[in-house]
Amino acid sequence: MKKKKNKKIKASILIIGNEILSGRTQDLNVSLISKWLDKECGIIVEEVRIIPDREKEIIKNILTLSKKFHYVFTTGGIGPTHDDITAKSISKAFKINYGFHKEAYLILEKYYGKLKFNDGRKKMAKMPITANLIYNPSSAAPGFKIKNVFSLPGVPLILKSMIHNCKKFLVKGSKMLSKSINFYTVESKISHDLGKIQKKYKKFLEIGSYPFFRLGKVGVSVVLRSTNSKKIILCKRDILKMTKRKNIKQFRD
Amino acid sequence: MKKKKNKKIKASILIIGNEILSGRTQDLNVSLISKWLDKECGIIVEEVRIIPDREKEIIKNILTLSKKFHYVFTTGGIGPTHDDITAKSISKAFKINYGFHKEAYLILEKYYGKLKFNDGRKKMAKMPITANLIYNPSSAAPGFKIKNVFSLPGVPLILKSMIHNCKKFLVKGSKMLSKSINFYTVESKISHDLGKIQKKYKKFLEIGSYPFFRLGKVGVSVVLRSTNSKKIILCKRDILKMTKRKNIKQFRD
Repeated sequence: MKKKKNKKIKASILIIGNEILSGRTQDLNVSLISKWLDKECGIIVEEVRIIPDREKEIIKNILTLSKKFHYVFTTGGIGPTHDDITAKSISKAFKINYGFHKEAYLILEKYYGKLKFNDGRKKMAKMPITANLIYNPSSAAPGFKIKNVFSLPGVPLILKSMIHNCKKFLVKGSKMLSKSINFYTVESKISHDLGKIQKKYKKFLEIGSYPFFRLGKVGVSVVLRSTNSKKIILCKRDILKMTKRKNIKQFRD
Repeated sequence: MKKKKNKKIKASILIIGNEILSGRTQDLNVSLISKWLDKECGIIVEEVRIIPDREKEIIKNILTLSKKFHYVFTTGGIGPTHDDITAKSISKAFKINYGFHKEAYLILEKYYGKLKFNDGRKKMAKMPITANLIYNPSSAAPGFKIKNVFSLPGVPLILKSMIHNCKKFLVKGSKMLSKSINFYTVESKISHDLGKIQKKYKKFLEIGSYPFFRLGKVGVSVVLRSTNSKKIILCKRDILKMTKRKNIKQFRD
């Protein structure tokens, strides 16, 4: 049997919007995109940037991130108003003509009807003219894919309704598996031994340690992440041996 | 009377943590830090990056952001476990000795008591040895300031309890004022005119436009941001004239 190659496919997210930077709006898209990529495509998000609606910044970051990662996902700035400059900036970054995308124009004209298809709405059909569309079942205005960049809207509900339409353009990576084990303890009680176990499994998996406060209890969530299920089982066994020795109890939800 | 200089002080936030990138943990610190800096210090956050707990990435980003902005705020990675490598990485970035900070050591030893002051806990006293401490009233382990970088913990409740202790190290900027006006409309109905008004006030203020769905109503929130209160009043007047002409009603909470 042919062995499946362990492919690590890496993505980044570029959140575009002054409202997120100022704290006026709480970002929810990082976690939404990241979880979807992980679960559905085995793709790992390795960097996120949040930047203002400023052409120069968008161009610079698109060029940097599209070189550094297999894929870039942008959110925000593809609506009808003056501060929506994502599509134009990405066109400039890649030196591709910015103009009406024929299919997007037809979709939007049909959605609004010829009479109500005003300038603001028409603007949403403008993008790099050779882009592929990412269809939007909830509010019609499509996102787009150009080179390895996927442009999605900023409103989480709309983004959520259309992200699966990115799937056909993506090369899948190896599924990342994860296992959480929760303990009634504090980090400093297990940090030394956990560090030793991490060293042992260095090549195969990542151990994360996260304190939590839940239902008035203090605990630590130990998270094992790897593409290799056997190593997760072995590492979990080592951790449980260690906590048993220290008389630390597991916390079960 | 001496006229106050319009000082724009810019900051960036560097969120360090695999758990945020993977979507396992929802970041709440960007909005917390950004709002605090804006309200208390007149400092504007212009870029956020979220990166993994990886030394090379931390060093590179610390060097880039500390050059580009007046201040950098990091969150995460200053706890007792093996994946807490922020303090060490920042020391390396600035080529400053990493070791026990005398004052931090005494604070933690007093907090835990000599007997319970184990290796994991001692690790939290390690940082660039010439750093200034940012005191932590909720769980003792201090953050630190070195050069123009402020290192804070990742747990939002703890961060919130100590962020005011950064204030004494910060030069204040001009207070950013903002005014939101909500309308019963959709963006495409006002986008053209709003763009014209933005052009008129280009030098003085930023107009943001954000669709919302609230109590089953669809609307647009128009946000004016400027350090000049008079320009905000004038611009608001222009916007209300425009919406009145179009028979668009204001939405009041």
